[in-house]
Amino acid sequence: MSELEQALAVIARGADEIIKREELAERLRSGRPLRVKAGFDPTAPDLHLGHTVLLNKMRQFQDLGHQVIFLIGDFTGMIGDPTGKNVTRKPLSRDEVQANAQTYASQVYKVLDRGRTELRFNSEWFGAMDAAGMIKLAALHTVARMLERDDFTKRFAAQQPIAIHEFLYPLVQGYDSVALKADVELGGTDQKFNLLMGRMVQEHHGQAPQVVLTMPLLEGLDGVNKMSKSLGNYIGIDEPAIDMVTKTMRIGDTVMWRWFELLSFEVSLDELARMQRDVAAGTLNPRDAKLRLARELATRFHDAAAAERAIAGWHAVVRGEGDTALLPQTSIAVPEAGLRIAALLTAAGLTGSNSEANRKLKERAVRIDAQVVEDAQRVFAVGFEGVLQVGKRNFARVKLVAA
Amino acid sequence: MSELEQALAVIARGADEIIKREELAERLRSGRPLRVKAGFDPTAPDLHLGHTVLLNKMRQFQDLGHQVIFLIGDFTGMIGDPTGKNVTRKPLSRDEVQANAQTYASQVYKVLDRGRTELRFNSEWFGAMDAAGMIKLAALHTVARMLERDDFTKRFAAQQPIAIHEFLYPLVQGYDSVALKADVELGGTDQKFNLLMGRMVQEHHGQAPQVVLTMPLLEGLDGVNKMSKSLGNYIGIDEPAIDMVTKTMRIGDTVMWRWFELLSFEVSLDELARMQRDVAAGTLNPRDAKLRLARELATRFHDAAAAERAIAGWHAVVRGEGDTALLPQTSIAVPEAGLRIAALLTAAGLTGSNSEANRKLKERAVRIDAQVVEDAQRVFAVGFEGVLQVGKRNFARVKLVAA
Repeated sequence: MSELEQALAVIARGADEIIKREELAERLRSGRPLRVKAGFDPTAPDLHLGHTVLLNKMRQFQDLGHQVIFLIGDFTGMIGDPTGKNVTRKPLSRDEVQANAQTYASQVYKVLDRGRTELRFNSEWFGAMDAAGMIKLAALHTVARMLERDDFTKRFAAQQPIAIHEFLYPLVQGYDSVALKADVELGGTDQKFNLLMGRMVQEHHGQAPQVVLTMPLLEGLDGVNKMSKSLGNYIGIDEPAIDMVTKTMRIGDTVMWRWFELLSFEVSLDELARMQRDVAAGTLNPRDAKLRLARELATRFHDAAAAERAIAGWHAVVRGEGDTALLPQTSIAVPEAGLRIAALLTAAGLTGSNSEANRKLKERAVRIDAQVVEDAQRVFAVGFEGVLQVGKRNFARVKLVAA
Repeated sequence: MSELEQALAVIARGADEIIKREELAERLRSGRPLRVKAGFDPTAPDLHLGHTVLLNKMRQFQDLGHQVIFLIGDFTGMIGDPTGKNVTRKPLSRDEVQANAQTYASQVYKVLDRGRTELRFNSEWFGAMDAAGMIKLAALHTVARMLERDDFTKRFAAQQPIAIHEFLYPLVQGYDSVALKADVELGGTDQKFNLLMGRMVQEHHGQAPQVVLTMPLLEGLDGVNKMSKSLGNYIGIDEPAIDMVTKTMRIGDTVMWRWFELLSFEVSLDELARMQRDVAAGTLNPRDAKLRLARELATRFHDAAAAERAIAGWHAVVRGEGDTALLPQTSIAVPEAGLRIAALLTAAGLTGSNSEANRKLKERAVRIDAQVVEDAQRVFAVGFEGVLQVGKRNFARVKLVAA
């Protein structure tokens, strides 16, 4: 495989669409570092693994020697919701935009190479544009073609209002590509319409149209729905390593291959195919594959040592071995009088009811800090900290706090 | 009738719609001079009587003590056609806008009271607006409601392209009313949608919504179609008095009443009703009513003396009496060898053919400068000027020029 073919393969990994692949090949062939744009909301970010699919693709471009532009769309953010109907979308001040940019920086450089990242704000050029400029931008597209965007089509058909300025925002995003002279723009599949807008606006301004590369949305922990905060099926990139590992180890085998494709740098597509064959042949335990993925992720967002500690913690929980001190600690609110052991086990989620807890006590299956507990009358009060265990594999490291 | 009722009657004369009449009454009751806005294209104007329907209404407001704002929409004119598809709609320069404003001034002050006219340009506020301001303006309306405008509805249904900036222009016009703090906006019935936009944008900016008054489009000389340059059924306000009179005397009786309603200041609605009764009763010749209208119009755009001369000319033409020197002169291109009398009469439109002309010569029905002509061989060459006459009422004042 030639160097160009290798680069194309890395770029195409996991991508949903590349428009157009031959244009991308041509630009790569030129040998110059390409300008690779990706746009982000200016609102306070709290990224999860789903967001890193795009960041990973940006990183892959960087590793191939290209320049990535991390564009914060602060121009429209500072306008807020001009209809005034969406009270949660207040206009952001310049200070808030800067603060949010700092928060982005603290998160995204866990993935991106800071040296090959250009952080830009589109208020830079839109702040200088006048009303006539916006009218000229609006003239570049027609109402009918804008209504072809999927969400507009649906809302229009359902007679839900579409404010006219919403038709301007895709053009604003398109003009960003002109201002940045983007060679490539990356985005989620749901952004395809807006990314294509960039091609149109660039052509109108005499620039060669950017290559558009869309990445799929990552499936969440449930393996069914897209990863999202609101569904709770996510791993935040600021979560403790133990949570990253524990949650990753819980995903299904099918979604695991998908995560490898979209989230792993260490496992090449060739190696991935080999692992899939080995699992199918029964020579590789899927749990070991998952552990490799969990380790890579925990290392990326923490470090190798934290990843190893977290994996040891996971062993403690799931296999009943390893260092329970590495388990995540859960706070349990208790009344002033404290809780009996059965109530505590149930509150910690280790038993389904107090009667189940009492049965386990009689079976001598309950331990606290590795010591078997038999006294069902023992009371635990605020300030207590320890590791509860029911049976061989059910652990909880708890701390009791005032209710 | 109270003073307020009288003012309302004058304002309502000929109006198609007043939205809302009770709001207008309330503002008139306040006693302060109202700010009455009417918008005009910044392109080179060449006004005909149809345009003066609106100017007359403006003048009536002025005569009632109100302030008229003659707004030239130069902001969008200086943008031109941003799609670049309409080559005839080039962006106007600031100098061209000023020159066109001068042309307007030379025409409209034949109707308007200069002292109560404020000449404004909307580039004054839109030139200072930034792109964010335009986005906020766009947010005030929805795509679906903008598509309710008649021409948009039709084009959308016919799948003819509507560029997105076309949705911004009604909002631009609406915002003009905010900038001008308009109490009333006047326009043609075809402008109703845009005028109502002003009410909406003003309300959003905390202003009481302007009263919208629409005037019908004037029927042309044919009494059927709207008066327009392209149909040729118009009287330009710069035309010679004789043409104004001659053309006005040619309109039908039905359209005459309409012209009285929309174009006359001298004839009140009461008097108009009386004249209609008299014509119906046979006690007033409709031609005399028409002469009165013609005299008023010729006086307005020229002066009383010019109007009288023009009417004398009309008498000469139509009734075979009066001063033929007052007739409009027509240039007729002739070959170097000149024309025989028969050919000249036909070229002047007085006879349908040379054989008809020769017959008339034999009948001694042809005169030149009031002298009977019998010599059919006489040749008329370049430089000849005179009044040709065939029969009692067919006159033409001609001048022969080189072909």
